Amino acid sequence: MPLPEKALISRIASKAKSPALTTRPRGTTDFQKGGTRSRVAGLQRGIGDDCAVLRLPRGHEALVTTDFSLEGVHFRRERHSAESVGHRCLARGLSDIAAMGGEPVAAFLSLAVPERLPQRWVDQFLRGFLALAKKFSVPLAGGDTAQSPAGVLADIVILGSVPAGTAVLRSGARPGDKLYVTGQLGASALVLSRFMAGRTKISERRNAAHFFPMPRIPAGRALREEGIASAMIDISDGLSTDLGHLCQESRVGARIYAEQLPVTGGRANLRFALHGGEDYELLFSAHGIVPKSIAGVPIACIGEITRRRKIVLIQGGKERALPAGGWEHFSSRKR
Amino acid sequence: MPLPEKALISRIASKAKSPALTTRPRGTTDFQKGGTRSRVAGLQRGIGDDCAVLRLPRGHEALVTTDFSLEGVHFRRERHSAESVGHRCLARGLSDIAAMGGEPVAAFLSLAVPERLPQRWVDQFLRGFLALAKKFSVPLAGGDTAQSPAGVLADIVILGSVPAGTAVLRSGARPGDKLYVTGQLGASALVLSRFMAGRTKISERRNAAHFFPMPRIPAGRALREEGIASAMIDISDGLSTDLGHLCQESRVGARIYAEQLPVTGGRANLRFALHGGEDYELLFSAHGIVPKSIAGVPIACIGEITRRRKIVLIQGGKERALPAGGWEHFSSRKR
Repeated sequence: MPLPEKALISRIASKAKSPALTTRPRGTTDFQKGGTRSRVAGLQRGIGDDCAVLRLPRGHEALVTTDFSLEGVHFRRERHSAESVGHRCLARGLSDIAAMGGEPVAAFLSLAVPERLPQRWVDQFLRGFLALAKKFSVPLAGGDTAQSPAGVLADIVILGSVPAGTAVLRSGARPGDKLYVTGQLGASALVLSRFMAGRTKISERRNAAHFFPMPRIPAGRALREEGIASAMIDISDGLSTDLGHLCQESRVGARIYAEQLPVTGGRANLRFALHGGEDYELLFSAHGIVPKSIAGVPIACIGEITRRRKIVLIQGGKERALPAGGWEHFSSRKR
Repeated sequence: MPLPEKALISRIASKAKSPALTTRPRGTTDFQKGGTRSRVAGLQRGIGDDCAVLRLPRGHEALVTTDFSLEGVHFRRERHSAESVGHRCLARGLSDIAAMGGEPVAAFLSLAVPERLPQRWVDQFLRGFLALAKKFSVPLAGGDTAQSPAGVLADIVILGSVPAGTAVLRSGARPGDKLYVTGQLGASALVLSRFMAGRTKISERRNAAHFFPMPRIPAGRALREEGIASAMIDISDGLSTDLGHLCQESRVGARIYAEQLPVTGGRANLRFALHGGEDYELLFSAHGIVPKSIAGVPIACIGEITRRRKIVLIQGGKERALPAGGWEHFSSRKR
């Protein structure tokens, strides 16, 4: 490919040159459990071969997730800085690992950019991407690059791991379990609503929940390790939609109390908390005692799992159906 | 997302409903070595959760590869049937696994399609994709779907496995090793050249090397198991380019004999064999005895590894430099 591909590969490779990306001597058959070191040591061979070669901790299963970040669909270059786009691209994948209670092992980035995109944009994208990767000690272990026929196209793949048989699935919720969320809801959609209302510039640093969301890896891990969560999902498509997924996989229903929802910016923003999407918080069910905060993140009890397979919202003492409608609703107006 | 995403997810999920995609009881800690069953049994949880959960055979390392298939870059809808596009999309990933001597464990497909793309196209794409997946017992274990702003965008991810420490890298070639390729070279570029010359319809079944290339999984596995290959790479970017990668990673040079190359359609097509790309054959180095065929695929000795770090072509007794130029050359005229 004329330029971008080669330039990108070397740029990705050189930027990503970290101890995590150098080849380890082969033949080592074990490495320490837990902590940062074991995860980084998992990468035997990164960029520069047909495949990356990775070793999982002994007794662990592999987790794999892939997520698109497409210009005009998931972000707009005039609204989001390249740094934010890179950060969000990786956050989408890491959040899925968090939702299983897993540890990220390595990231793979497929990135196609238009021929005329300034190299500076790619640099800033990688800066945002790699800053978040560093926070969780996730090496960029490979990927693909191409020239895009239209717009920036990114696809993030995360390989994670979890002790065999302990991944927290969506299907484990049982009637009587309480429902909880981490952090606050609706913050990302609130920013989006301002864009929709005509705002063109919004401070990225003061609205980190939208521009630099932090995947709940430590909270997800703690919820698994301590055996708290019976089922878990990340709220990337909106509470109503993702609660629908969890209930469907668990073959149950749910009752949500509007007054108990941790809504960003107060009651008036309830619809953002219910349907907004891209919050990257964790929604989980539990039947035992749940602490008020986990791994430094506040936890709110927002309802309970029911045998009746309907999802309802209780507001002002009245019950009404809560149809899934988060992502679809907002995305029709495009990010 | 209005329609395509949901339609696609259910279409992918329903099409992909196979024994390989059902959930296995958790807690099983071992499974048979080798053969189809163990690989399929590796999938603990597929489509329907935040991540797929997979168990690798005991003592195995993970292989991960990702490859774009973009409309207008890697294929054209007016030239390639949807079935061929789906097949080639998966073949790109499987070929990388073959080049490490690995076994495919599961495939993940990220697919974005324009709003007006007929559902029939997606169905045919999946038919081609899943027919090849079935051949190698690779379950479609997840992915992502989105509405594309322009053209069909696919990204294939393959998780593979290989006994720890045995992956055949690009970096193992040593001066004195001979160089070999599987099958024939230039067949794919020959088809491309006919398109470039103005042909609009070319029989897909009679030109399977281009439209339905068969990744060399069994040959790659045999070359690893029997300890034959010292270094290996797949020829997806053209012999000259991929030989360049192998030599660079091994810090060696190479001498290629034009008369020994297994050129599709005869000598006149030498340039396709040297620079054509998308052959998905394996190029490997070896220092011992190499059989005339492996796993039913003919093997040709095409040259040798040299200490001098240059890549040269011997033709009619004369030596000339062989610069990498396969993929770049052809792709500038677009597929």
